[in-house]
Order: sequence, then structure tokens, then C-alpha cells
Amino acid sequence: MDELKKSWKEAKYKLGNHGDRTIDVLKQALTAVDDKEESDIYGTGTVIEDFQEKMAKVLGKEAAVFFPSGTMAQQIVLRIWTDHGKNNRVAYHPLSHLEIHEEGGVKELHHIQTVLLGEADRLFTLNDLKQLEEPITCLLVELPQREIGGQLPTFEELKEISQFCRENEIKVHLDGARLWECLPYYNKTAAEICSLFDSVYVSFYKGLGGIAGAILAGDQSLIDESKIWKRRHGGDLISLYPYVLSSDYYYEQRIGKMADYYNSAKRVAEQFNLCEGIETIPRKPVTNMFHVHFSKPKTEVAAILTTLQQETSIGFTGMLKNHGDSVCSFELSLGDAFDKIPEKDWLAAFQELNKRMNLSS
Amino acid sequence: MDELKKSWKEAKYKLGNHGDRTIDVLKQALTAVDDKEESDIYGTGTVIEDFQEKMAKVLGKEAAVFFPSGTMAQQIVLRIWTDHGKNNRVAYHPLSHLEIHEEGGVKELHHIQTVLLGEADRLFTLNDLKQLEEPITCLLVELPQREIGGQLPTFEELKEISQFCRENEIKVHLDGARLWECLPYYNKTAAEICSLFDSVYVSFYKGLGGIAGAILAGDQSLIDESKIWKRRHGGDLISLYPYVLSSDYYYEQRIGKMADYYNSAKRVAEQFNLCEGIETIPRKPVTNMFHVHFSKPKTEVAAILTTLQQETSIGFTGMLKNHGDSVCSFELSLGDAFDKIPEKDWLAAFQELNKRMNLSS
Repeated sequence: MDELKKSWKEAKYKLGNHGDRTIDVLKQALTAVDDKEESDIYGTGTVIEDFQEKMAKVLGKEAAVFFPSGTMAQQIVLRIWTDHGKNNRVAYHPLSHLEIHEEGGVKELHHIQTVLLGEADRLFTLNDLKQLEEPITCLLVELPQREIGGQLPTFEELKEISQFCRENEIKVHLDGARLWECLPYYNKTAAEICSLFDSVYVSFYKGLGGIAGAILAGDQSLIDESKIWKRRHGGDLISLYPYVLSSDYYYEQRIGKMADYYNSAKRVAEQFNLCEGIETIPRKPVTNMFHVHFSKPKTEVAAILTTLQQETSIGFTGMLKNHGDSVCSFELSLGDAFDKIPEKDWLAAFQELNKRMNLSS
Repeated sequence: MDELKKSWKEAKYKLGNHGDRTIDVLKQALTAVDDKEESDIYGTGTVIEDFQEKMAKVLGKEAAVFFPSGTMAQQIVLRIWTDHGKNNRVAYHPLSHLEIHEEGGVKELHHIQTVLLGEADRLFTLNDLKQLEEPITCLLVELPQREIGGQLPTFEELKEISQFCRENEIKVHLDGARLWECLPYYNKTAAEICSLFDSVYVSFYKGLGGIAGAILAGDQSLIDESKIWKRRHGGDLISLYPYVLSSDYYYEQRIGKMADYYNSAKRVAEQFNLCEGIETIPRKPVTNMFHVHFSKPKTEVAAILTTLQQETSIGFTGMLKNHGDSVCSFELSLGDAFDKIPEKDWLAAFQELNKRMNLSS
């Protein structure tokens, strides 16, 4: 383990997330569950069916199905839309999870042609969509756009994009890996946002801090078809209850805290932006997350953060990403961990960070 | 719920399996695990890596990787063998899991051409293999052949099949969903059996009674490649530890009991075969499982078993499968549950079963 990661792990407090991902996270979720409650069996049984129904209601859709992963759920929904569409083209952001984190599954397994919409360092716009040269069957919209720090279009623009798609027979799918985290900014319910989309995927282990698992929601016919593909993918496990139960548990624990996380993110980002040579993207967060960019080489920043983490007992990050020779960054998602830090301690750590960034200029 | 299933569920004792699949199965497995043990993260971390190494050793292979399901693991290994082979043809038994329980995933996702070897109601033989008209890249051998009651070729025939494949550049893959259950009959270690195969899949929730999960084992290069496909399939979950930990726990609990389960199966099958109009397949079990065939219509047998289960408190089965108008069957796998039944009680239940089968003739 490198020094930066070690100093982060050993820090008493952490700026981001909900705490360590230990076995206790699962044990806690199971504590209140009756020992005699029966396992789901290949997608049937009250434990999975009740949660699916609950999530269909929350998302304002006719039906929902639980998947072990979002990777599986999203490939499948795109496969179904393109199977029923006039062509096999799907448009998404150049830094979509499907493009950069899934080893090309959507192409290798489903032979879907992907169209990169807009540019990597910004949100795509209605105008980008209108300028596409070839027709598409489906548009995937990720809210927020994680790889650019969790940016969001305005709700107005989202409505226009949705309307344009509906007028042009384009299915609109929501990659809602962090949908819960958008609700305070939009000041809308999940169902209000999802009403702009034909299908929706949501995750239970990012802002909610569960173990793993995803829900795909949409019309009954879509969900019925997705269950066939879930089996084909090897996702129709005999028992998914460890993920279902923990998803439900942490949903209930944290869905009401999204506004707190969002507020924490704005406060912490403000402090970063006061430091020499540091800028957050977006400058003012719109969810609980943002990226922190340093205009210094990675080795230099790693050295600063390592000693800072050792001395202040505040964990900023365990890893840095290089962007060329003189810029590096990390991602921060605010959660329960932040509330445990005494205010004077984290504010003092930021003063110290600013001092050291100045010194090393 | 139908009457047969209800009477089975309510019966104090069960002939088959290890007990109810309740949340307690997971809770038990977690009891001894330290709360602070860290989750695996996308296939890394000691919790998953240690178990993979352990299973690689048990199976006598260079490397192993944990999958959420066997469906996923097996499609992937066949994809890799055919990608590297001269053609995309894979031969297996007509009632292979891949052919009848996976919604055609291996064809729909991987465009593999499947060749049905031999006939549905018997094991395929070396001779069947020799008579194939077209060349194949891979042969999948399921031990035991579940859909025909868990039959096994002799070890000698298995060796000949393996040798033929190696001489003809055919990869041999072992569908070892119930490999642990074969060990007493072959009187071999898992590694000795696996040495006849280029790749092996084993399961942790059938004879071992875990929650879900599978291991794929083989050469390092195969396993490395399979991890890429695992991500493509949506199987590279951030956390698989609920399945990994429970797999390890129940492996340790039950791997030493396979001979007991096998012996119980032989004793119980003997009793079935003493009854009028009942026959087991195979007649003399070679693992812990067999099928029970009744030469009577399903409705009639269901009525007999329902009252028998109500009156004797011995659960035989909760479901029956129709084979035409006058034959029906069910599958039985012996496990821990059988040991809990007082001998006189289950023997008396069989006498009663025989009486009622006679009466209804």
C-alpha cells in the first residue's frame, strides 16, 4: 500500500463516504431481519418482490426488477430498446460508465453501436443531440455525470431533451447510479424526474452506502423481457437477498439525508476553492460529490496530503489521478463520515492545506 | 400454494436438503467473521483472493475466480475456449443446464453453436463423441448428469473421454455444479478428477448448502481472461463477500459429509424401490441425489403424498413433474435434514407409502 493510501486509511476521520466497507455493514442490515424470513428463489418470493414493488412506486414506474449490478441492468435495457428499435445505435456521454468501465460489454455481448454525444469535459446538450448525423434508438442520460465531477443539466433542459426524444421516437434511459443524490438540487421527487424517462436504473451502494445491487424500472413489458436477459447474463441468482435486504435497509437509513450530504459538499468544496492551486469541479457542487483538481504534479500533492493526513487526522483521499504532468485530482462524495468530524478540526486542516500548497508553490 | 407444497412445508421432517433456506443461513455464516473484516472491492481484497487461492488448490488448478453464478462462469469459459479455437462449436448433453435453464444465453450472448451429444435419457459416451460429424472446440461434461437423476460415467470412461479430447485438440470443461457430491463414488480427490479437465466450474449452494456463488478454475491465462468477461457480464460486483464468506463457511461445514449424504441416498432409494409403482433413477444412486418416478398420474400421486406428509410428518417433496399422462417424478438430494429424522419414523412412512400406492393401483 502506498503512503498516501496508508495515511488516509489510518486517519481518524474521513471527509468522504459513510465509513469503512466492512462486514459489519451487512451484519447491521441483517440485525432487524427475522432469522426465519425465507430466501428469494430465482427472483421470486416476498423479500425480492416487495422491494421491487416499493422501488417501482418510488420511481413512478409500472414495474421494477432487482439486478446484482448496474452494469448488467443497463446493458440489458439498451439491448431491449435496440432489439425493438429501427437501428442498434445508442448515444451517451463520452465518459459514460458503459464506455470506460465495462470492458466494452455492451458492444462485445450485445453488438450495440455506441455514439459518443458531445465532449468529454462537459455535459451534452439538446443541441448536440439535434446535430447527430445518424438516427439513434436510445439516449442514455447519466444524472449526475460522474466523470466530470457530478454535473447536472437544469431540469428545464432535461425536459427539453426528453421531449425531443419522444417527438423523434428515441427511447430515453436514465443512468441513475446517483439519482438519489440529485433530488435536493432539482427539488423534485425521484418519480418526477423519472417521468421524463422510459427506463431507469438506480444503485444502492453509492450515496446510499449498501453492499451492491441495482433496480431497473419501466413498463411491465420491459421488465418482463429484462428478466429473460437477467437469466441469460447469469444474474438470476438463486438468492439475491443479501443485496436486497441491505439495499432496503440503507435506502431507509439515508434517503432522508441527501440534502445534508449536498450541503456538506458545498461547504467542503468552498474550503478547497479557498486553497492555493486547488479548484473543484463543479465549482459549486450540485450533488454530494465533486472532483478536486490540483495544479501541481501528483507526487508533490501526494506528499502534501500524506503528511497532512498524518498530522491532522483528517483523511482527504487515498488516491490521486494524474492528468498530464502538472495536474492531478481526486473524487469526493460526502456522506455520514463528514458529520463525525469536529468543525474546528476540518476547518483547521483546510487552513493547513492552503499553507502547504502555498509553501510548495 | 398448492396442497402438496403446503403439506411438505409444514411437515416436521424433510427427506431432502439441509433445512429451510432462510436468512439465518447467512447469519450463521457471518457469526464467526470479524465485524471489521474488509469487503472485497471489484474482485480484489483478501476475502475473495484467499478463497480463490484455496479453491485453486482444492481443484488442482493454477488459478481460480469467484463468480456470482455458474450460468455466468460457464458461458464465459465456453466463450474463451471458442474464441481461441478453430470453430465456435461446443458439445454437451441434451439436458445440459446451458441448454434448458439459461434462456439460451450461450447462443444469444456469445453466438456459440451447441451440439447435443448422445440422447436425453442417458449419459453420452466416448462412442457418441467419436461419431460427431463436425469438429468441436470444446466438450462440456456435467458430473453428475443432474437431469437424469445424477448419473455418472465410470472414472475409466471419463479418462478415455478426456484422453480422446486431448488427442483431438478439444478442450474439456467440467460442469461440476455437483462435483463435491461425486467424490465418495469415485473415491478420488477433487483435484484428481479435475486433472482430466482444462477448466472447471463448481457451485457452493447445492450439496454444500451455501447462499449462491461459483468458482471457475483453470490456467492463469484462462482465469485472467475470464475476469474481463466477468466485468462485461456485470458480474464484477463491488462486493461479493456475502457469497464468498458463506461459500467458505458451508464448504468447511459439509465437504466432509459427502459420503454420509451418499449413503443416506442409497438407503432412501432402496426404500422407494420397495414401493409398488415407484422406481428411482438411477436405481442405485452414485451421489447424494436421484429422481423418484411414479407410474401413476401426477394428481393421484400428489393426493397420496399430501395426506402422507400430513399424517407422518415426513416431507417427501413439495412438487411433482409430469411425464405424459401416467408418470410423474421428483428430485431428491440428501443432506443434513435426513439425519434429524428418527429411523423408525421414516421407515414407517415408507411402509405407509407402499400401502397407499398399492391401494390406489
